[in-house]
Amino acid sequence: MDTRPIGVFDSGMGGLTVLHECLVTLPQEDYVYLGDGARLPYGPRPLDEIRRFAAEIAGYLESLGVKLVVAACNSATAAALPDLQRRLSVPVVGVLAPEAHAAVLATRNRRIGLLATEATVASGRYAELVHALDAGAEVVPVACPRLVPLIEGDDPFGEETAEAVREYAAPLREAGVDTVILGCTHYPLIRPVLQRVFGRGVTLVFSAEETAREVAELLERRGIGNGEGREGGCRFLTTGDTALFREMGRRFLQLPIASVERVELAALEAAAA
Amino acid sequence: MDTRPIGVFDSGMGGLTVLHECLVTLPQEDYVYLGDGARLPYGPRPLDEIRRFAAEIAGYLESLGVKLVVAACNSATAAALPDLQRRLSVPVVGVLAPEAHAAVLATRNRRIGLLATEATVASGRYAELVHALDAGAEVVPVACPRLVPLIEGDDPFGEETAEAVREYAAPLREAGVDTVILGCTHYPLIRPVLQRVFGRGVTLVFSAEETAREVAELLERRGIGNGEGREGGCRFLTTGDTALFREMGRRFLQLPIASVERVELAALEAAAA
Repeated sequence: MDTRPIGVFDSGMGGLTVLHECLVTLPQEDYVYLGDGARLPYGPRPLDEIRRFAAEIAGYLESLGVKLVVAACNSATAAALPDLQRRLSVPVVGVLAPEAHAAVLATRNRRIGLLATEATVASGRYAELVHALDAGAEVVPVACPRLVPLIEGDDPFGEETAEAVREYAAPLREAGVDTVILGCTHYPLIRPVLQRVFGRGVTLVFSAEETAREVAELLERRGIGNGEGREGGCRFLTTGDTALFREMGRRFLQLPIASVERVELAALEAAAA
Repeated sequence: MDTRPIGVFDSGMGGLTVLHECLVTLPQEDYVYLGDGARLPYGPRPLDEIRRFAAEIAGYLESLGVKLVVAACNSATAAALPDLQRRLSVPVVGVLAPEAHAAVLATRNRRIGLLATEATVASGRYAELVHALDAGAEVVPVACPRLVPLIEGDDPFGEETAEAVREYAAPLREAGVDTVILGCTHYPLIRPVLQRVFGRGVTLVFSAEETAREVAELLERRGIGNGEGREGGCRFLTTGDTALFREMGRRFLQLPIASVERVELAALEAAAA
């Protein structure tokens, strides 16, 4: 038994969908979530800058005594995961490999679609991970720049979102994919819109669910889970506006957020130094 | 529900340890096992020859109407998996990726040992797969040329085996690994010897168990399992001596083998053509 908390981070709120699945799958664990609200979004930033930010945050979480860090952000995972894994002494789980594995196991016709941000599509990491497991599978990527702003906007279930999803889904339907990797932690929020456009015949793979499964298996295999039966707690930290985090974060977490603590960027920089 | 059988192949008997775990994990499935007794061992052969043999066998199994092929041989997986996956329309599961994944999840100090044949160690594939999942993990490989002959010999639990295991384990104990990948399908047969030399503190990862888990998850995710509750059957095919297969195979399968059918090499070659 290991009572140390699990650290989870993201540039902003998207990682809260991963935390949501972890809270459901592993309710006995304690969590510390850090959103880098002061510097989001990471997507348009240079890779080495994303790596520096991720290293600061992961180092800070490690200094809080976490037993495991979850990089709950596709851009940060694509840019920084190997670097974080080499730096930290605790394990670091990213969101890409669990999803790629799930997609390879799920596809029947071995044609896999990918919806993700431009940065994640450009990294080519999903295709690499899929091909390492099934060299004969085909990955059809579509960058979806409009989705994150729509999901963070006032009307995530509006006609504009439905229209954007139809547009991004069209080339995947054309290609006849039977499995779609949703390669951004924001996308679970519009799950019904996505499932309706693709239909029941297409399997949607979400990073939040697959990453929570991976975390659960890691704790079990290492024997570092917390005692079953207890109800764990969760600390929320942000480098940005705490009121905004609490307000907007509830939509992503789909659970109440009691209090949010502010972390100064100087504290993160000090942790990386 | 999908009543087609699962195809499993190996150069000889080692893959029967994988079949054993599949039979225990998925008793409701039907299986066809093919051992290439006429051409074993694969280990010392050139890679392109192993790829040709594996393509013939996998093509032959596909012609029998299997829903999935398991390459239950580390040398064949290391040499031929991507090629098989590109050739076949049914999914092909190898023994390396499931083990690498399990080892990454299991290790606490991120130092992973590998015991395998010379060919598998030389391929470097385990280290690649481990580093794709944890760039900060260390893989310490040891080639074990004496183990397969000892395990196939008259006295697998004798002093010579124990001595060989102590010799191969020494550099891994020296390196302080806490997890050891047993990268050959023969090794489950000497599990007690291995566990005794490494001690309870070291996690041993067996290809047979991890591959059976992977097959079970694939069937479940694709919805192509056979009906639960039924007891499946198993056909045994060999290109070599059927009496030898039945006799020696029982030791690997640890279950009775009723009958063994002979397959001519010409039939395999025809399937690949």
